[in-house]
Amino acid sequence: MGKRLLRALAGEAVWPPPLWLMRQAGRYLPEYRALRAEAGDFVSLCTTPALAAEVTLQPLRRYGMDAAILFSDILMLPWALGQGLRFAEGEGPMLPPIRDAAGLATLDPARLPGAIAPILEAVRRVRAEVGDAALIGFAGAPFTVACYMIEGHGGDFAEARALAWRDPALFGALMALLTETTIIYLAAQIEAGAEAVMLFDSWAGLLPPALFRRHVIAPAAQITAALRARSPTVPVIGFPRLAGLLLGAYAAATKVQGLGLDTAADPTEAARLVPATMALQGNLDPLALVAGGAAMADGIADILAAMRGRPFVFNLGHGIVPLTPPEHVADLVRLVRAA
Amino acid sequence: MGKRLLRALAGEAVWPPPLWLMRQAGRYLPEYRALRAEAGDFVSLCTTPALAAEVTLQPLRRYGMDAAILFSDILMLPWALGQGLRFAEGEGPMLPPIRDAAGLATLDPARLPGAIAPILEAVRRVRAEVGDAALIGFAGAPFTVACYMIEGHGGDFAEARALAWRDPALFGALMALLTETTIIYLAAQIEAGAEAVMLFDSWAGLLPPALFRRHVIAPAAQITAALRARSPTVPVIGFPRLAGLLLGAYAAATKVQGLGLDTAADPTEAARLVPATMALQGNLDPLALVAGGAAMADGIADILAAMRGRPFVFNLGHGIVPLTPPEHVADLVRLVRAA
Repeated sequence: MGKRLLRALAGEAVWPPPLWLMRQAGRYLPEYRALRAEAGDFVSLCTTPALAAEVTLQPLRRYGMDAAILFSDILMLPWALGQGLRFAEGEGPMLPPIRDAAGLATLDPARLPGAIAPILEAVRRVRAEVGDAALIGFAGAPFTVACYMIEGHGGDFAEARALAWRDPALFGALMALLTETTIIYLAAQIEAGAEAVMLFDSWAGLLPPALFRRHVIAPAAQITAALRARSPTVPVIGFPRLAGLLLGAYAAATKVQGLGLDTAADPTEAARLVPATMALQGNLDPLALVAGGAAMADGIADILAAMRGRPFVFNLGHGIVPLTPPEHVADLVRLVRAA
Repeated sequence: MGKRLLRALAGEAVWPPPLWLMRQAGRYLPEYRALRAEAGDFVSLCTTPALAAEVTLQPLRRYGMDAAILFSDILMLPWALGQGLRFAEGEGPMLPPIRDAAGLATLDPARLPGAIAPILEAVRRVRAEVGDAALIGFAGAPFTVACYMIEGHGGDFAEARALAWRDPALFGALMALLTETTIIYLAAQIEAGAEAVMLFDSWAGLLPPALFRRHVIAPAAQITAALRARSPTVPVIGFPRLAGLLLGAYAAATKVQGLGLDTAADPTEAARLVPATMALQGNLDPLALVAGGAAMADGIADILAAMRGRPFVFNLGHGIVPLTPPEHVADLVRLVRAA
């Protein structure tokens, strides 16, 4: 038997498919907003084990998903390396940009173990309470994390992408540091109790093919190989968002057990590009979940029809957006469970 | 013989390939900034034939591209239908959002011929001065234009995308109106002297597959079929940005003479998906052009190597960004001409 999510990631066509949603814990939930108001700033929320654990478990109590994903942020790694990080209301993350060797030298991997200790404690607490659901740990993939570190904020990352072309040595040094520390960070989450880990490369689709191979596929292959060597039974879910025509190349090089499909990816086309034993995960449009009703039901039915009979994990194609009505999530869970 | 761009779009492997760049006229050019300062607001610039023609021709004088693309904006169609439009400095376009039947009813196709008259006059003036270069007319594709019309500004278009799910009848009515008027608008540009037309679907990649087929592929097929019936010798270039795995489906359904590849598209993979006589266009990363130097030269060489021997038009994978040094564009032109 075993947990439904882990069976699917092991290559079994579990049906109805296991189900969780990217950003299932967060602002659309009133119980999250209440706790967030108490916690003060966002970084404190992520680094206070009792609060991070509580927020992680909120959607499971409400909806009974098949997985909990640690409540945290992909920018907690740069924070743990010593880059300042704050979340300004309505503006998203803000960091002092790193654009030269001096900036790179301010990052200190020796800070990592101490800085991530409270995050690992949150992992332990969640694992103790997660029951039949599986606990997923995660990290941002090096390219996406580097985008924020160089740009200093969200947007189109023009500075970061130009730097990748203009100074490949500096960009490569940052990527190497992030690849190494991501391995350490994910291995530590596994040791603390994560039963699967996910690697989010949200901005992978911004890169031209040659840089996609260098900065998305190669680091993901390095990270998955290192984790496989340490923890052969713990599956990795890769999410190279908007990989488009390079999705198959990513799957082949990384041998991830689970491949996250973004909203735009056609599940049937994607299934043709990957081994039959590789679980696909996704990919309802988060805006279908905002709309709800018959349209959402149709969207769900299309995905289920395409994925029936192969290893699959139901999810969205991108994170839940704040304007999502919580009752639509309940409808979604009911529809997927009835598959 | 004939113009180099038109020969490539007719299926000939012209070499070195014809060359133009998306947003080749614009803010990165000092002569544009000087003229822009005189013109007042952006809409006036687009609707004053002498100024729009002058701006269109500026990059040709400086670099000698193989094509001029009419200086205008994809939102001039909603403007011509009566939706208010202004461009706020640093904020991009702002429109009063259309989100219900009453909003839709304010759009008036009868305004179109009068409103676009100055734009067509600019087309005539450019055509008279364009010499050996070809003149490309353009429009935004209905989905991308609808995104701005519903949202009222740029961003992630969450309201527009949710409306597509929530109220397919309203969204469909807007799409039908835009499809019809886009045909009229492009046919009028052709009549005024445009020798090719391009259909920009910049935000196509935001859609899930079923909606991509309905709102990107189907309207593009309708528009190309209508234009082919009226002007069989005028080629259409389609640009379904971030189409990813659905690029081949778009090409097959629309039978465009030219297919624009975005930055992320692998040219070799793309070439496998389309007929050997369909010209591909693209797709250097605009950030490689910002960086310049050896990295840019490598990026150009990779694309040329992949496209040699097939009909091809050199371009970027997205528009020139404002921080681009004009001398890097000169370097690019020299490198492509030396292919």
